[in-house]
Amino acid sequence: IQRYIVTKLGEDWIFLVLLGLTMALVSWSMDYASAKSLQAYKWMFGELKENVALQYLAWVSYPIILIVFASFFCHLVSPQAIGSGIPELKTILRGVVLKEYLTLKAFVAKVIGLTAGLGSGMPIGKEGPFVHIASICAAVLSRVMSIFTGVYENPYGYTDILTVGCAVGVGCCFGTPLGGVLFSIEVTSTYFAVRNYWRGYFAATFSAFIFRVLSVWNKDSVTITALFRTNFRMDFPFDLQELPAFAIIGISCGFLGAFFVYLNRQVVLIMRRPTALTRFLTKQQLLFLFGVLWKSFNMLSLCFSFVTQLMPRECINSLFDNFTWTKISGSPAPPGLGRSAAWLHPQVSVFVILLLFFVMKFWMSAVSTTMPVPSGAFMPVFTLGAAFGRLVGEIMATLFPNGILFDGIVYQILPGGYAVIGAAAMTGAVTHTVSTAVICFELTGQISHILPMMVAVILANMVAQGLQPSLYDSIIQVKK
Amino acid sequence: IQRYIVTKLGEDWIFLVLLGLTMALVSWSMDYASAKSLQAYKWMFGELKENVALQYLAWVSYPIILIVFASFFCHLVSPQAIGSGIPELKTILRGVVLKEYLTLKAFVAKVIGLTAGLGSGMPIGKEGPFVHIASICAAVLSRVMSIFTGVYENPYGYTDILTVGCAVGVGCCFGTPLGGVLFSIEVTSTYFAVRNYWRGYFAATFSAFIFRVLSVWNKDSVTITALFRTNFRMDFPFDLQELPAFAIIGISCGFLGAFFVYLNRQVVLIMRRPTALTRFLTKQQLLFLFGVLWKSFNMLSLCFSFVTQLMPRECINSLFDNFTWTKISGSPAPPGLGRSAAWLHPQVSVFVILLLFFVMKFWMSAVSTTMPVPSGAFMPVFTLGAAFGRLVGEIMATLFPNGILFDGIVYQILPGGYAVIGAAAMTGAVTHTVSTAVICFELTGQISHILPMMVAVILANMVAQGLQPSLYDSIIQVKK
Repeated sequence: IQRYIVTKLGEDWIFLVLLGLTMALVSWSMDYASAKSLQAYKWMFGELKENVALQYLAWVSYPIILIVFASFFCHLVSPQAIGSGIPELKTILRGVVLKEYLTLKAFVAKVIGLTAGLGSGMPIGKEGPFVHIASICAAVLSRVMSIFTGVYENPYGYTDILTVGCAVGVGCCFGTPLGGVLFSIEVTSTYFAVRNYWRGYFAATFSAFIFRVLSVWNKDSVTITALFRTNFRMDFPFDLQELPAFAIIGISCGFLGAFFVYLNRQVVLIMRRPTALTRFLTKQQLLFLFGVLWKSFNMLSLCFSFVTQLMPRECINSLFDNFTWTKISGSPAPPGLGRSAAWLHPQVSVFVILLLFFVMKFWMSAVSTTMPVPSGAFMPVFTLGAAFGRLVGEIMATLFPNGILFDGIVYQILPGGYAVIGAAAMTGAVTHTVSTAVICFELTGQISHILPMMVAVILANMVAQGLQPSLYDSIIQVKK
Repeated sequence: IQRYIVTKLGEDWIFLVLLGLTMALVSWSMDYASAKSLQAYKWMFGELKENVALQYLAWVSYPIILIVFASFFCHLVSPQAIGSGIPELKTILRGVVLKEYLTLKAFVAKVIGLTAGLGSGMPIGKEGPFVHIASICAAVLSRVMSIFTGVYENPYGYTDILTVGCAVGVGCCFGTPLGGVLFSIEVTSTYFAVRNYWRGYFAATFSAFIFRVLSVWNKDSVTITALFRTNFRMDFPFDLQELPAFAIIGISCGFLGAFFVYLNRQVVLIMRRPTALTRFLTKQQLLFLFGVLWKSFNMLSLCFSFVTQLMPRECINSLFDNFTWTKISGSPAPPGLGRSAAWLHPQVSVFVILLLFFVMKFWMSAVSTTMPVPSGAFMPVFTLGAAFGRLVGEIMATLFPNGILFDGIVYQILPGGYAVIGAAAMTGAVTHTVSTAVICFELTGQISHILPMMVAVILANMVAQGLQPSLYDSIIQVKK
């Protein structure tokens, strides 16, 4: 028996290591491909500066071609690859058998579709599909291993393998092993076996580690650090008197998150109803072509404020920066401002730009997550929350331009900190989870705002849970 | 039914808020009382400088009186209050009924005994007993609420209430809500209901928040920050080439942690065996009186290096500091060194002091956790791990005095970072948990070392789990 256990344990280790390794490679190569695609997009746009018509054409057609390709590819290879994947996994883990959902075909369709989708620069998330990809990977891997060894029957059944797969999926998506494990637990399970916690931890850490090493090796980043690293001052990151503002962010994000879920469901339901519009546009593809066109048009009109030039990741990085935009707008840009300059406009107020960005991005994200391509909602909602938090932070900075005085120490308002808290609260409200706070810590590499963030996330959850089901439950209800 | 659910939910909220509030107050007042006691101890020692004999007497008798008081108090009021509490809770949560374990009597005995124990400056942990205290608090509170409302039958039974109690206990002990919830899950449960995760989160955050606010209000700290806040540079906290050193820390901590568990069990078993020694010292009290005496004697002999002047928390703070001790020893102390100066000695090498401290503290902690007073092992092991990590860090700093060059950037070795990693790995090995890493992030307020820490903690767990049961399981086995 001793030996039997050792072999079993050994195989479990090999399984976890292989899973982590595969997913890290997949995640990294997808990031690489989509980054190159975005670079090409930007380059093309820049090169065509002389001809506005051509520039417009390129700006609109490039994402459309990619999205249409992604949609058709998924449709042909495996329609199961469409959407986020988390709702379906949740039902599978509850015991429902979904056909052809964990096959190699779905894997290929999801990976290629998602890469094309991400490369188009649309507000599409990577997190949800990644959970699906990792789960397929785990399921296939366990089947392959059972062929080789002949005895690898998973000791606890399918559920354990899929749970670990989910954890790895979230973990290697942004290199957040801790938050990944917790998020996947909260989202997919009702009862959770603690032994999986450990296995998920191991596989996710290994995966995140390889993922980061790959990017160091590729000279993307100098060393292993957080993805959206912030540099807030640590001595006195915030004062207690700022807490009401954080609470307001939390409560507002709760309402906004519930509204996002509502809007998302309404879009699905309207598209399904047999109206004149949907009869005319029989294929969903046509409908979202229309959506993309409109979006591109909006982007062009917004282009004056330069914000749309930012790629999704740059956008989040700039929202988290250390400057107080209301203070520096008007005056010449300080050194080190970098990409955040896109948010400043000599004529238009920062508030207007942020509000416009938020409103436009809000409905665009709600619509784009219903498109028939592999797409998650995590990252778009994260960006939305960051923009909202930044808005509140900038308002606070305007209300208290000299900071808050308490006990002889002046606390300057840090709008970037508000942005981080907003991002955590909004994602928490939409997904009904608290571990988004952990993901935020890992993404920013700073934990100094832990208490206000926890308060905001919990408040957002309380409000959102009272109003609407989580986005994943909402999708499950709609798909039924 | 709707209304029924609302009332139920409302009561659940009230229960969680009350639990959090009570525990925060208990935690804070215990901290306050034990800090005052330690201050008095130090003051007395300082005042008696003229008379060495009196000074010695005071140094030895003060902790003995407190410890003996704690032991007798517990013995008289409630013998169930002795020990950590986590092993017993684990058995209760598995369904075993332990008699008189969750009564108000045990609560009083544990609180007063623990305060006296902490005030004596012995290597006693607060974490384990706090889990017990919070669980009693939760159980009593739910009973009291059922009297008032008449309908408050806990919807999911006893388990849910105790699980939340555990989470609050760890969370408000050091103000680490996140790690608290995770640690309590890992330590006490096998299967975990995700709904409790959320409830635990809420209560622990609330509790930690009140706990921190109380200390701000009392001017202990200027604002809400981490308990052992570190100030490592964030741009390039570590280089990939340092990873082998981190792995070595992890593996060594695994072995040391297993040895700690082994030693702890052997001490209990030897004390129980009917030898001449134990026959002579019929009461356990006498035996530990002896232990205390010896300890104090050792402390005096060690006193030359000033390290023993440090109180437990100061000790951890100084181990986490930003200086490289091997570099500054010999030269005049740089400004801002503060309490860390206690580790430096003009004649003795830093390595010798650290090693001596580690060895002495190691067996003292293993013995002191078997004493018949409320005492946890978390904090002593944490300190041990920090000392070990610091030792490895200082050795690394000596081996690479100019830092590690990679890709044109010079990475200076940060021995403080090694100390943090060592602390997480050692506690992880002894308790067989991974969430000690999260507790470490929350305690230090920095998450920059996440990947090496996760690697070290996982390695430590792999080694320790292969060699010995966790400390709590070991105590359960011994007590059976």
